[in-house]
Amino acid sequence: MPLMKSWVVSANTAETPFPLNNLPYGVFSTDVTEPRCGVAIGDMILDMAACEAAGVIVLDDEGAFDLPYWNDVMELGPGVWAKLRARLVELLEERSVLRTQVEPHLVSQADAEMHMPFLVHEFTDFYAGKHHAMNVGTMFRGPENALPPNWLHIPIGYNGRASTVVVSGTEITRPNGQTKAPEADVPSFGPCRRLDIELEMGAIVGTSSRMGQPMSVQEADDMIFGYVLLNDWSARDIQAWEYQPLGPFQAKAFATSISPWIVTKAALEPFRTSTPARERELLPYLKEPEPMLYDIELEVTMAPKDQPATTIARTNYSEMYYSAAQQLAHHASSGCAMTAGDLLGSGTISGPEKSQRGSLLELSWGGKEPLTLDTGETRTFIEDGDTLTLHGAAKGDGYQIGFGICTGTIAPAARSPT
Amino acid sequence: MPLMKSWVVSANTAETPFPLNNLPYGVFSTDVTEPRCGVAIGDMILDMAACEAAGVIVLDDEGAFDLPYWNDVMELGPGVWAKLRARLVELLEERSVLRTQVEPHLVSQADAEMHMPFLVHEFTDFYAGKHHAMNVGTMFRGPENALPPNWLHIPIGYNGRASTVVVSGTEITRPNGQTKAPEADVPSFGPCRRLDIELEMGAIVGTSSRMGQPMSVQEADDMIFGYVLLNDWSARDIQAWEYQPLGPFQAKAFATSISPWIVTKAALEPFRTSTPARERELLPYLKEPEPMLYDIELEVTMAPKDQPATTIARTNYSEMYYSAAQQLAHHASSGCAMTAGDLLGSGTISGPEKSQRGSLLELSWGGKEPLTLDTGETRTFIEDGDTLTLHGAAKGDGYQIGFGICTGTIAPAARSPT
Repeated sequence: MPLMKSWVVSANTAETPFPLNNLPYGVFSTDVTEPRCGVAIGDMILDMAACEAAGVIVLDDEGAFDLPYWNDVMELGPGVWAKLRARLVELLEERSVLRTQVEPHLVSQADAEMHMPFLVHEFTDFYAGKHHAMNVGTMFRGPENALPPNWLHIPIGYNGRASTVVVSGTEITRPNGQTKAPEADVPSFGPCRRLDIELEMGAIVGTSSRMGQPMSVQEADDMIFGYVLLNDWSARDIQAWEYQPLGPFQAKAFATSISPWIVTKAALEPFRTSTPARERELLPYLKEPEPMLYDIELEVTMAPKDQPATTIARTNYSEMYYSAAQQLAHHASSGCAMTAGDLLGSGTISGPEKSQRGSLLELSWGGKEPLTLDTGETRTFIEDGDTLTLHGAAKGDGYQIGFGICTGTIAPAARSPT
Repeated sequence: MPLMKSWVVSANTAETPFPLNNLPYGVFSTDVTEPRCGVAIGDMILDMAACEAAGVIVLDDEGAFDLPYWNDVMELGPGVWAKLRARLVELLEERSVLRTQVEPHLVSQADAEMHMPFLVHEFTDFYAGKHHAMNVGTMFRGPENALPPNWLHIPIGYNGRASTVVVSGTEITRPNGQTKAPEADVPSFGPCRRLDIELEMGAIVGTSSRMGQPMSVQEADDMIFGYVLLNDWSARDIQAWEYQPLGPFQAKAFATSISPWIVTKAALEPFRTSTPARERELLPYLKEPEPMLYDIELEVTMAPKDQPATTIARTNYSEMYYSAAQQLAHHASSGCAMTAGDLLGSGTISGPEKSQRGSLLELSWGGKEPLTLDTGETRTFIEDGDTLTLHGAAKGDGYQIGFGICTGTIAPAARSPT
């Protein structure tokens, strides 16, 4: 598919993350409007609440755009999602006869502040990147036992914390927590010393399922509303001490950042790709009937305070071993009810090469091999004042489907209350 | 404190779970009313929405009782909780001058259906019973390594699934899931064969905290709205195969049952008791400034289909090693935001004796020692048609603070979609 042209001329370049092919959904505010639903086009945002008020866009659920989240639109289901996208294309395409009715409702992205695009109902994080699992497993258990026995059969996941999922740009406070050095007799409480990122994609569940109602992988794919970039900030020293036997808890509870624009499945359609060949055959309930992963180029940059950024990793979402659809089908396999607004983290996305690793734990091999940034500074884990940014885009023929960025700067730890 | 007498005579016995000393909060409906807030007194329910409409009870947040959850009342904070309780006592005490104004708003419990008493925002489950952790650890790792090294220092917890927390009486469908027998080469997918209960108390967080805002144990205790009985249904065979390395997921995601009445902290005040003496000194952020556990007698009964129930365990909430206040303070220690409506499961409550074990895993010692029920039938784990019921009450001087029951009957597994 080539670039689709819009009368919003900034959308007609190979560089813009937001051509007419994309049309991602976000929540924005300006000096004169409260947070409400908007659609990115070039360097502008289409104010959806204003479009609805003007009668240019009509939804079954009146007023669903005049809210600080997309959940109400999601819940209208895939039929409405398709109709909405078709209408947006009709309004914004180069030869649209409706241009004069739409143009007054464009807001410059430069004048807008972005907010969380949806209410996160529950957050589940997976561990579905094989290179990441191999790297971490090798560090902690040696190469022979790197992958747990279940790993090739189950998209391993755990429930995360929804209350601390924040939008890109939110400052991240270094967490305090309990840690124990290997040589120490007792643990201590204080600021995390091994603060890390995890480069992930987030899949947003757009419709709900009832308790006791499992779904096929195809049905799961149909339920996904779209994708965002996701940084699952991780306190490795807190994690190491707390995670046995029931998994990560406070090491991951303090913050998860997502990019502000939900890129829809429709926009990503041309970039579908299969999960890799299997060493072990999957059980039928997990088999993909068609490609459900996406070819999305990903990059991580790190910038010390007041310094330029250095690219520290480049990889691709297609490196995952399980797709979000497989993860969602597994999630509901026990009868677990899924809800519109549930967020599924893909798991850390690493490629086979050292430069393709999606966490500092892997990039610095457990802190033993410091990275040298372009500024000459070195890093094992994140220092106060550092800014970590995820970038992502699917690259088409003369256009890209961009995600914008997912960024966060680290503030020093708070004083503990006791 | 002795029994407080009410003009609702059924509340004035040593046997009623709901004397004037209790006044627990639930959500009920009848043939003529939609689900709304109510307060149990003897064998009656005080219709709070009707009381408010009649001007007998006035809240700052008008209409907060005319909702199918108590969350809006919770969010008004401890000052309002205390005033509300004082007003209820004034209205319902034996010599109340307001009796004639209140009496029309009583509904018989026999005519009411109970619903979930609150919207569960997020659900966290802990592993904070030492006898349970020792039993499970001994079975899986031997007595020398039964307790993980962190256990005496951290109230170990993990995020659970809120979307499948259901009220007592809801039928529980046996989950399907992936399991692998030790001798099998590959896993299979099908109905759980080791379905279990976990006898727990649930603490309900009643006010919210901001991200990055940890709290002291005292502040955490002040935030707790009340307690319910909680059965964390568990699929042991699914859990055994999936839980490494990131903890339980589908093994616990299919259902968690709670009792319908929220027993307030105020009602439990006379029953406060300390957590046990410590083998290792706790870090300051986890120390209790005063007793924050409660002396609550607990019992589990099991009834095969159409058969009478057998008591299979008796224990006490005071067996816990960590209080809910300590768990909540730990939960927020990283800066994790807590929300009114968060539910914290205590962890399985077992006592030191075999008859005091709060799960079938422990009672049948991993399935090796079947229980014989009063009917003569034997059980290792739960069979289809079995009804499992938790009972709980704090026993005072001629009265009790009852929780009602938390019950569920097992329906056969659903057919898998593939």
